[in-house]
Amino acid sequence: MESRKVYMDHGATTPLREEVLEAMMPFLREKFGNPSSIHAQGREARQAVDAAREVVAAALGAEPGEIFFTSGGTESNNIALRGTAALKPKSHFITSSIEHHAVLDVCKDLEEQGHRVTFLPVDSNALVDPRVLEEAMTPDTAMVSVMMANNEVGTIQPIGEMAALAREKGVLFHTDAVQAIGQIPVNVKELQVDFLSLSAHKFNGPKGIGALYVRKGVPLTPLYRGGGQERKLRPGTENVAGIVGLARALELAVQELPEKMSRLKHLRDTLIKGLLKIEDVILNGHPEQRLPGNVNVSFKYIEGESLLLSLDLQGVAASSGSACTSGSLDPSHVLMAMGLDHETAHGSLRLTLGRGNDEADVDYVLKILPPIVERLRNMSALYKKR
Amino acid sequence: MESRKVYMDHGATTPLREEVLEAMMPFLREKFGNPSSIHAQGREARQAVDAAREVVAAALGAEPGEIFFTSGGTESNNIALRGTAALKPKSHFITSSIEHHAVLDVCKDLEEQGHRVTFLPVDSNALVDPRVLEEAMTPDTAMVSVMMANNEVGTIQPIGEMAALAREKGVLFHTDAVQAIGQIPVNVKELQVDFLSLSAHKFNGPKGIGALYVRKGVPLTPLYRGGGQERKLRPGTENVAGIVGLARALELAVQELPEKMSRLKHLRDTLIKGLLKIEDVILNGHPEQRLPGNVNVSFKYIEGESLLLSLDLQGVAASSGSACTSGSLDPSHVLMAMGLDHETAHGSLRLTLGRGNDEADVDYVLKILPPIVERLRNMSALYKKR
Repeated sequence: MESRKVYMDHGATTPLREEVLEAMMPFLREKFGNPSSIHAQGREARQAVDAAREVVAAALGAEPGEIFFTSGGTESNNIALRGTAALKPKSHFITSSIEHHAVLDVCKDLEEQGHRVTFLPVDSNALVDPRVLEEAMTPDTAMVSVMMANNEVGTIQPIGEMAALAREKGVLFHTDAVQAIGQIPVNVKELQVDFLSLSAHKFNGPKGIGALYVRKGVPLTPLYRGGGQERKLRPGTENVAGIVGLARALELAVQELPEKMSRLKHLRDTLIKGLLKIEDVILNGHPEQRLPGNVNVSFKYIEGESLLLSLDLQGVAASSGSACTSGSLDPSHVLMAMGLDHETAHGSLRLTLGRGNDEADVDYVLKILPPIVERLRNMSALYKKR
Repeated sequence: MESRKVYMDHGATTPLREEVLEAMMPFLREKFGNPSSIHAQGREARQAVDAAREVVAAALGAEPGEIFFTSGGTESNNIALRGTAALKPKSHFITSSIEHHAVLDVCKDLEEQGHRVTFLPVDSNALVDPRVLEEAMTPDTAMVSVMMANNEVGTIQPIGEMAALAREKGVLFHTDAVQAIGQIPVNVKELQVDFLSLSAHKFNGPKGIGALYVRKGVPLTPLYRGGGQERKLRPGTENVAGIVGLARALELAVQELPEKMSRLKHLRDTLIKGLLKIEDVILNGHPEQRLPGNVNVSFKYIEGESLLLSLDLQGVAASSGSACTSGSLDPSHVLMAMGLDHETAHGSLRLTLGRGNDEADVDYVLKILPPIVERLRNMSALYKKR
């Protein structure tokens, strides 16, 4: 088998689809107007933003007035949480201990600002228990924020069930769906959430653009002030090309979702099955309730980082956790919350599949990985001592 | 003279240059990695972001570590002001009464949060008097924020002089240079400012990307939390293509600045001279200390909005104020601060020149505008009563 380039880090980012770039191009060229201008070029840009908002709303089961464009998932999460926190001092927030830092660290900020935050535990599969959430809610709970699917281990949370529990108690529910969109069906009306964050570059759209769904009538304090764009929730000249790209990418992702899901699930399960044949390997995350494209395994006695570098040398792009914190030496807070010991957490490898991957990619990884693992283990003091 | 398309709204936004798009394309296609990923695709993206930061720093006379990429001018302004305000409760801020809403309205928020804000007056040319600034500073003044050039009337403030006064008193100085960059020379070391905001789409770069210069050692509280990007000041996956585009656009703008300035000044002055031949027209803003591309005039007895629509029908894109608030019926806060009466303020027209404009564009506007003005005046009750 010859060497090949295999990108299996779709959880970090995805390639922009050619069809999406095509949709964006007119707005990177001749249709350059500012949507706030009242002349022809401005109106043309405004119409494109309006049309994109309708497409996004339709794809999520929302109304156009419920969609706000932001610069990405991090901003969407920050606006939802901080914008709610700003409405009432010293309120109570509930989140999970396995959130992305764009939720987890915002919650830590909220604690410093005098709010109270409960960080829900997860089980060994990274699942939040809805009964534990139910018990955590108090009369002063303002918001629950639980991610739809975990970025590291791919576990899918029972969001609909949790949102229903929150609604019963009059508590707002936010979900960070950055990893879920384009991988599993997401409909805000069915889920009955109040806020939902998404980021285009995770579903073959452009970087630097995201959206926040805010259910009609739910109040939110803007974090920025400026020219009043996005109905004052997120001012600043609209990234028209980005917005058009986000909408096109989401539209395509939703259209192709059933086919993509079954294809990725098959690749994922083949990959997992092959990896588990290597000795001293464990699967991290829920065996079934997981993203179709997510594989996360721990190789005992070796460092995930060394694995990554060896894979990279052989053309395979993977990750040892979330891209945002790779480079950090701390073990993943997600794996630690799931109860893994430090050593096993450090030996984790995340392979995230996407549109471009095929059987040959999976075969290639399954072919090159065992000898890499063997070589690294033979160099490992821990392995020899075992 | 035949009908033509004339875009004279470069103050609202500018077309993306073909060379800039070319620089961006690889990052919208094959080089799609997440800069936080440690594999080859990630490193490639990281290198592009690092290289862009160096280009931007060099163009502004800054060091790379002093440049932070943001989603645009509005965000840069919000981070500079709110990030400083968060460091100390109940401090004092000074700004001008003609700032863009992304500064002015942030200052109003700061007042609500318990800070004290002084809004400096301007003279009839929209100039802030440095002596008035000097007198306004008190021992608890945390920051002065004065825009480098006004977006509506183009008046250029004596930023270096004002920054020096602030520095003498140990007060931080921020300038919103969104309209200045690419039109006049800007060097942060010469100006000795502590913070400077810029936005790529105002100098033929892409929308949705900007930067904030923060002088080395100056503390600032991040407004968002997340994956730690931009040295934790502005987390979120980097908009790599946007960052590369911003850098390329800035590099080109700085290279071509001397030639562009003299060319635009000539066009601007021809336009102003021609417009002032129409009766009952006044020039708004400073006659000399103004942006090379800015023309702002008031036509008595008519509404700027009607003028705009008539111009639009004949292919000319212009503005009646800042794009961000066009559509609003309130007269421009800038023109009001300059002492114009309501009626004259309502009759204002902004024509902002840019790279694409030439003599023929100016001739065309000077040809079609007088009959439009005459027609609108003949329909105006105010004109008949005069």
